[in-house]
Amino acid sequence: MGNTFGNIFRLTTFGESHGPAMGGIIDGVPAGVELDLNALQHVVDRRRPGQSSVVSQRHEDDKVEVLSGIFEGKTLGTPIGFVVRNHDARSQDYDHLREVYRPSHADYAWQAKYGIRDHRGGGRASARETVSRVVAGGIAMQMLEQLGIQVLAYTTQIGGVRLQPGAALDWNATWSSAVRCPDAATARQMQHAIDEASGQGDTLGGVVCCAIMGVPPGLGEPVFGKLNAALAQAMMSIPAAKSFDMGAGRMLATMLGSETLDTMHAMDGGLVYEHNFSGGIQGGISNGNNIFLEVGFKPVPTLMRDIRTIDSRGQTVTLHPRGRHDVCVVPRAVSVVQAMAAMVVLDYYLLAKTNHL
Amino acid sequence: MGNTFGNIFRLTTFGESHGPAMGGIIDGVPAGVELDLNALQHVVDRRRPGQSSVVSQRHEDDKVEVLSGIFEGKTLGTPIGFVVRNHDARSQDYDHLREVYRPSHADYAWQAKYGIRDHRGGGRASARETVSRVVAGGIAMQMLEQLGIQVLAYTTQIGGVRLQPGAALDWNATWSSAVRCPDAATARQMQHAIDEASGQGDTLGGVVCCAIMGVPPGLGEPVFGKLNAALAQAMMSIPAAKSFDMGAGRMLATMLGSETLDTMHAMDGGLVYEHNFSGGIQGGISNGNNIFLEVGFKPVPTLMRDIRTIDSRGQTVTLHPRGRHDVCVVPRAVSVVQAMAAMVVLDYYLLAKTNHL
Amino acid sequence: MGNTFGNIFRLTTFGESHGPAMGGIIDGVPAGVELDLNALQHVVDRRRPGQSSVVSQRHEDDKVEVLSGIFEGKTLGTPIGFVVRNHDARSQDYDHLREVYRPSHADYAWQAKYGIRDHRGGGRASARETVSRVVAGGIAMQMLEQLGIQVLAYTTQIGGVRLQPGAALDWNATWSSAVRCPDAATARQMQHAIDEASGQGDTLGGVVCCAIMGVPPGLGEPVFGKLNAALAQAMMSIPAAKSFDMGAGRMLATMLGSETLDTMHAMDGGLVYEHNFSGGIQGGISNGNNIFLEVGFKPVPTLMRDIRTIDSRGQTVTLHPRGRHDVCVVPRAVSVVQAMAAMVVLDYYLLAKTNHL
Amino acid sequence: MGNTFGNIFRLTTFGESHGPAMGGIIDGVPAGVELDLNALQHVVDRRRPGQSSVVSQRHEDDKVEVLSGIFEGKTLGTPIGFVVRNHDARSQDYDHLREVYRPSHADYAWQAKYGIRDHRGGGRASARETVSRVVAGGIAMQMLEQLGIQVLAYTTQIGGVRLQPGAALDWNATWSSAVRCPDAATARQMQHAIDEASGQGDTLGGVVCCAIMGVPPGLGEPVFGKLNAALAQAMMSIPAAKSFDMGAGRMLATMLGSETLDTMHAMDGGLVYEHNFSGGIQGGISNGNNIFLEVGFKPVPTLMRDIRTIDSRGQTVTLHPRGRHDVCVVPRAVSVVQAMAAMVVLDYYLLAKTNHL
Repeated sequence: MGNTFGNIFRLTTFGESHGPAMGGIIDGVPAGVELDLNALQHVVDRRRPGQSSVVSQRHEDDKVEVLSGIFEGKTLGTPIGFVVRNHDARSQDYDHLREVYRPSHADYAWQAKYGIRDHRGGGRASARETVSRVVAGGIAMQMLEQLGIQVLAYTTQIGGVRLQPGAALDWNATWSSAVRCPDAATARQMQHAIDEASGQGDTLGGVVCCAIMGVPPGLGEPVFGKLNAALAQAMMSIPAAKSFDMGAGRMLATMLGSETLDTMHAMDGGLVYEHNFSGGIQGGISNGNNIFLEVGFKPVPTLMRDIRTIDSRGQTVTLHPRGRHDVCVVPRAVSVVQAMAAMVVLDYYLLAKTNHL
Repeated sequence: MGNTFGNIFRLTTFGESHGPAMGGIIDGVPAGVELDLNALQHVVDRRRPGQSSVVSQRHEDDKVEVLSGIFEGKTLGTPIGFVVRNHDARSQDYDHLREVYRPSHADYAWQAKYGIRDHRGGGRASARETVSRVVAGGIAMQMLEQLGIQVLAYTTQIGGVRLQPGAALDWNATWSSAVRCPDAATARQMQHAIDEASGQGDTLGGVVCCAIMGVPPGLGEPVFGKLNAALAQAMMSIPAAKSFDMGAGRMLATMLGSETLDTMHAMDGGLVYEHNFSGGIQGGISNGNNIFLEVGFKPVPTLMRDIRTIDSRGQTVTLHPRGRHDVCVVPRAVSVVQAMAAMVVLDYYLLAKTNHL
Repeated sequence: MGNTFGNIFRLTTFGESHGPAMGGIIDGVPAGVELDLNALQHVVDRRRPGQSSVVSQRHEDDKVEVLSGIFEGKTLGTPIGFVVRNHDARSQDYDHLREVYRPSHADYAWQAKYGIRDHRGGGRASARETVSRVVAGGIAMQMLEQLGIQVLAYTTQIGGVRLQPGAALDWNATWSSAVRCPDAATARQMQHAIDEASGQGDTLGGVVCCAIMGVPPGLGEPVFGKLNAALAQAMMSIPAAKSFDMGAGRMLATMLGSETLDTMHAMDGGLVYEHNFSGGIQGGISNGNNIFLEVGFKPVPTLMRDIRTIDSRGQTVTLHPRGRHDVCVVPRAVSVVQAMAAMVVLDYYLLAKTNHL
Repeated sequence: MGNTFGNIFRLTTFGESHGPAMGGIIDGVPAGVELDLNALQHVVDRRRPGQSSVVSQRHEDDKVEVLSGIFEGKTLGTPIGFVVRNHDARSQDYDHLREVYRPSHADYAWQAKYGIRDHRGGGRASARETVSRVVAGGIAMQMLEQLGIQVLAYTTQIGGVRLQPGAALDWNATWSSAVRCPDAATARQMQHAIDEASGQGDTLGGVVCCAIMGVPPGLGEPVFGKLNAALAQAMMSIPAAKSFDMGAGRMLATMLGSETLDTMHAMDGGLVYEHNFSGGIQGGISNGNNIFLEVGFKPVPTLMRDIRTIDSRGQTVTLHPRGRHDVCVVPRAVSVVQAMAAMVVLDYYLLAKTNHL
């Protein structure tokens, strides 16, 4: 059951990095919705490797082939099956890893679990699997747009460079920035930090913020299916994700209660909030305010330096730099955070329809 | 499906804070395991309100009545049904909240979702529901002990007071400390911080650390059911939880890749790690190292001060302090974090049995 | 996961026949629905043992204690927890079965599975567990009634006595008949057949028909969640159920295609069907016609005669008649069939709400 | 969730009859198992259309393309994604059905549910979707064989022709018979009955028996996940299935309890049963005896005759014979019954591993 995500709008995925293809099946797709497959491809392209010096130079066209579930431009309500072929896998680049466990990689843990492992390019543990998430998320986003819900994601931190709060941000600038930061000045600093790390054969992590606007109040299924719990699971399932902050997140742990109240006012038949420390969710249910959260990513543990580690016989070995890797996964993770958030919100929107007879 | 947690070892719970009882059903209980119900009650008692000035003065004996699933001291493999009665509910204390939406509470969001709400003591949104989690977690812990797995949880931060890393901690001291901090000096500072906040009618949040020792490598179900993703969902489903850090967590986002490698060595037929930045999980699967994580909690939004908010007609109202509330939920949350971690690990231990024919 | 039933409207149950109580939790209950708990008790009473010579003489008041989920007469949308106490368990009547495997009973299979077993009154394998199904089904029926959907169940066969098709039936007479057959003449014959079997220490099985009126077209989730598949699982999970026929069922296997067409006509903006061989479901989805199905039950394998069998050491033993048992479970199974059907239809009604944005 | 089947070993499928491809993802595949993909193709070929005059003349090579989950001949424990292309779809043959609801077909029910429908060849309601079941079932069968479990399926009835009990059957003859009946004489009669119906533009249904040998005692998850309940759901989800009999099935409803006891004897450390009325399952759990069941199928409602029905505006229309259809689906259903049974047994075998610590 580990490869299925969601309750009603459910994505199941497959694929190893160097196998013939990645792909998935989306079940629970609402029927009769117009889908723009060109727009979908455009969303998937944003995550594609090889687009800048920041990310992996593997060349994949990541062309999404939809195999079912759409008829004459509209969803049928039947599952959408799709495939994305792997073209530029250079499996021979990984022969030396067959019997080696790289530090801070999944190699040893997977071997211990399954007793077998596709060592080529990380196999199923590769971030290449996230292409299927972005396909499903892209479809979810088209549906959310029709409901007036918008999911934004962008980089707020890379290494020590952090986007300062309060800046007037141009969301549209996010995708034209190689680092996926909507503030041009900060983006330049981030790029510089990455270049510097890269120059030393090193890597950087960072933080992605996700803001979801237009979510109606009432989404979330307490007590275990709280909306924030579902978002946390979604985000922490992304490769290299190490922290999750809902709203003001961990900062709230150091504040006084009196400093953290999201005081409400009635206005024009609705509610407005003085603050949004909660990030749009209270008691596990959306409160109508914007939802926001942050996801922290660790640096990629594959360095362009010699690394000392062990092999499957317990012998110490030295790995020499090889293969194509992201210096910083955060820019590509932005697409994945956005996709996962979109899937969660659509899934919970559909679930909430069952709260009344 | 919002009230069920887990895949194989599955807890389903019910209960409103001021209804007749809380309770739950645990399905997927391994058969033939000896359970010590007195020891279980002891674990449940740790979470009980009224034990110190820090927590709610509501008096509940929280006596667990087991209704099924155990026969002559051993588990039958059938579901364990249990009930914990509510005795000291003073529902009249909440009459003034019937039509009021308290700031940063679940009131409005629940009303928007369901169109109806039990306003007494928070209803189902009350942290009282966590008693059922601690019952199930206590049972899981007894089973984990038989597998050589130990789940520790303790307070590492309350407000601005933080347990310093490197202290030699006496885990046994955790439960004798009112704030659930195993270091006596820090515990005193935390108690002092709480007293100070309390004196001003204010509240404090904090951070709970959980360490799980003895977990075999191989637990976790990539890609969506990664062990860290399951732990994140588990923890973020706890009332007032706002942040989740796996291993070194968000700190990793500012570090260089070369600073974060969990280098391995072979020793005595097993592995030892130089560091544990990952917190014992790589690629979503336990790697045999200790698992550790932190959960941040916001301060309780019920102050012993006048609070301005709105009622269901949109009128501004002032709430005067009333009822019994925790000044700081963190000490009681320690029990809940421990319970949720135990359930996740046992569930994934059972799941991993299906990875091979 | 074996003790949970349903997708949205989900029942989880617990309880052994001679433990302290049976009970369950219903999750996914639509909010804001008025529930009549007296009417619910009335439905549960119909399944109660001790009501006639046909059924077990165990005396249980089967009083349903609702512990949550209802507030001021309406559902909260939170889970409904409930308990039904076991009062008249005479456990000592079963001491001789501790090490014996009765033929055609669950004894050996459960022992082989779990390595432990509550031998008293069948433990969890006892039909006593169905009381929780009837509670949840009774709640589902109240909701279905508000949607204009009616679930009927009645006995169509006991042993060799079969209700002839074409009789004008008075559904209201069902529950006043000890054998739950709405046709008085047939009911008398059935009673006679049971008396005859009983006189010889023997038992009888039979067939229960279920008819569901007012189901809108569109319920069912192909391909694996077809409405008929869900109904089949529901019915075959009832103790002693051995056959399931959807619509004309197995009879269709011997007919020509031309004899089995459910020809449609348009009338008054809707559809009318010339026949209903399909039983109201086509392609796994309700077609707006009445749904009907039949469930066959085997005779109870506990006879009031000496029975030869083996014990846990493989020794041949003779069991002498003892304990209180149903001569024919079919009359009580009628309540259970009705309950399971109601749960399925309500669950699929709620699921179908998610088929559109 | 309607397109996913199973708990641990889980199949999710997609595909419309005239879309680009059918396919699926199998999750929960045990790791390290050798799979013979040629043998798998052979199993899939048995279900292929166009093999005899009995079945549809659509020509599909049904070549299974495996996209993931297998590495150097062994399963990785990661999901197996696969695709089967649709080549010989003659969509124009179905233009006249765009606005027509055929009697006893899924057309109207699907339209009512989704408000949209792929009318070409039945869309997703076509039995073509079962190719994905046979792929997954074929993989399950290879695993079961390694466990010493064998799943047989064969035709026992077509129209009025029924295989007589007691015949000494040669299972290997099943697949060489066009009607999938292992008894040559009966097979000839069945073929004759089909030819006769076909000559009149009519169709026939029938009954498939499934026997599962070598199942260890202890599989099944009471009370809702009984092994018989899971088998019933599996079988009733197959297109055109209308009845399910477990063991002696409905026949038991007319028998006396004393006639139906599966008396046990101890022999050589195990059990032998005098009879097997229960079909190898008691109390929802396998008892170590052979499991057997029967599934009844209705005749295909597409006749090679003029049929009167209505269109989407409620007008009466006459359909003239067109397209390629099975005269009798039973021979192809044999493959599907076998596949579904194999998936259920493997899934429950894996589930049972979690019954003990």
